Amino acid sequence: MDIASYLDRKREEVDRFLDTAVPSVQTAPATLHESMRYSLFAGGKRIRPILAIASAEAVGKPTKAILPIASSLELIHTYSLIHDDLPAMDNDDYRRGKLTNHKVFGEAMAILAGDALLTLAFDLCSRADLLDNLDPIRQVQVIHELALGAGNLGMVGGQVLDIQAENKDIDLATLQTIHTHKTGMLIRAAVRMGAIASSATPAQLKQLTAYAEDVGLAFQIADDVLNVTGTREELGKNANTDAQRGKKTYPSFCGVEGARTLADQCADRAISRLETFDAKADPLRELARYITARRN
Amino acid sequence: MDIASYLDRKREEVDRFLDTAVPSVQTAPATLHESMRYSLFAGGKRIRPILAIASAEAVGKPTKAILPIASSLELIHTYSLIHDDLPAMDNDDYRRGKLTNHKVFGEAMAILAGDALLTLAFDLCSRADLLDNLDPIRQVQVIHELALGAGNLGMVGGQVLDIQAENKDIDLATLQTIHTHKTGMLIRAAVRMGAIASSATPAQLKQLTAYAEDVGLAFQIADDVLNVTGTREELGKNANTDAQRGKKTYPSFCGVEGARTLADQCADRAISRLETFDAKADPLRELARYITARRN
Repeated sequence: MDIASYLDRKREEVDRFLDTAVPSVQTAPATLHESMRYSLFAGGKRIRPILAIASAEAVGKPTKAILPIASSLELIHTYSLIHDDLPAMDNDDYRRGKLTNHKVFGEAMAILAGDALLTLAFDLCSRADLLDNLDPIRQVQVIHELALGAGNLGMVGGQVLDIQAENKDIDLATLQTIHTHKTGMLIRAAVRMGAIASSATPAQLKQLTAYAEDVGLAFQIADDVLNVTGTREELGKNANTDAQRGKKTYPSFCGVEGARTLADQCADRAISRLETFDAKADPLRELARYITARRN
Repeated sequence: MDIASYLDRKREEVDRFLDTAVPSVQTAPATLHESMRYSLFAGGKRIRPILAIASAEAVGKPTKAILPIASSLELIHTYSLIHDDLPAMDNDDYRRGKLTNHKVFGEAMAILAGDALLTLAFDLCSRADLLDNLDPIRQVQVIHELALGAGNLGMVGGQVLDIQAENKDIDLATLQTIHTHKTGMLIRAAVRMGAIASSATPAQLKQLTAYAEDVGLAFQIADDVLNVTGTREELGKNANTDAQRGKKTYPSFCGVEGARTLADQCADRAISRLETFDAKADPLRELARYITARRN
């Protein structure tokens, strides 16, 4: 299969849906919606929504309900970037080659745009019109996965651990705990939400969860490598910021080549989790490779 | 009925539930949970949860599921206070007689504690164990009400309008639009969530919604009056801050006495909406009076 065209196609579907999901800049409060849209349509790759869709496809034929469910993950991801970039947090001026949200709209609006995107994610997942295509018990489960992946024991918890580890001499196990929460839990939620929406069996859900955990780790190791090796143009943000902030990364433990090997091993292991799945899981298999080898 | 003892009893139930809902400070990340708990257990009156419970009681016998659902409203309310108090927003040092969250835990942790409380609200409402007592279609509807009340067209939208109106010469209609969103929409969500969880008929839901809209307005007018007339001790925060910030309020349009009369009229109208309800709606009736006459 051609993963590049698959990614393009799914990204366009997600983008079209997101465009309908967030009110236009003509809707009051106009500045809030402008600020939400500014960061949401800043060129994201839509990895998390596409993982949810590919997971639903691996299990069966995804319902129409998968698009709002998958898109909700991008709202969560975007809000986390807006809040992470704030002066009180990472204090970043650029993201995806554009000024960060608070540099354009001010800190207050950036905080509120993040809050609104986070809330809108749960709005999308709880829409009544999803019920035509989705068992309501599964819809509640999907919402719960999103809350667990994004919350205090998931992504937000990981962000706290990350901030607390700055300029500290942490070991590899601690680094992995940070990553498992900060990045891994939302990727895990994405794959599980797609599987649950597609009526996965418990055995399928277990295998897909194991896949997601390996992919999440591969994703973060690749991100650490890119932070060292990528240029400002490739990354769309300042390069080598981890070292400047005294942040430990995979390359700081095992070198760039060692980290690349580790990421490849994670991708191999992720793919091996899908043994019992047929060709409908090929997008998930290709995604594991793509995530590990990406340049931005 | 004795509204004071009713409020005490319900507040204790909500507090006991919230104590189990938020991980203890022994659970990692400890500082995050400490920060969440600091603001959550700072002496809030739990008005929104109690409105949800009283609304469920007005319709019928509330299920056990009402407690997590009602408590989720307090998580949303608490997060909104933490974020509102941030230096980039209202820059307040005191809240309920205690230092604000960011003064104790720093800005980064305050932002993240707010994000985590917001997310945890949806975690509570989507718990699988609620299904024993709640039709899953109604559970999804409850979640959707919460998202609508808290989000870009609800509370967060109102906060944006409020910030944009500072030091501007707005008219009474604009002030009412701000309040309807900033305060009213979450109070409306509270009453509707309780009613939906308690299997309200469409006619009951309509009447309770009208009640909620009147109570929401009474609440905000009373808040504006308190900001002018309350002392620092009564309010637990600095008094007369609206005038200092150049914020228009109900007293600035119709004087303190005029605003008090307006709040009483709203409470009367709210109570009249409950005509067809029996004595099970008495707590809602008393709450309309309490909210209008409160001193903090």
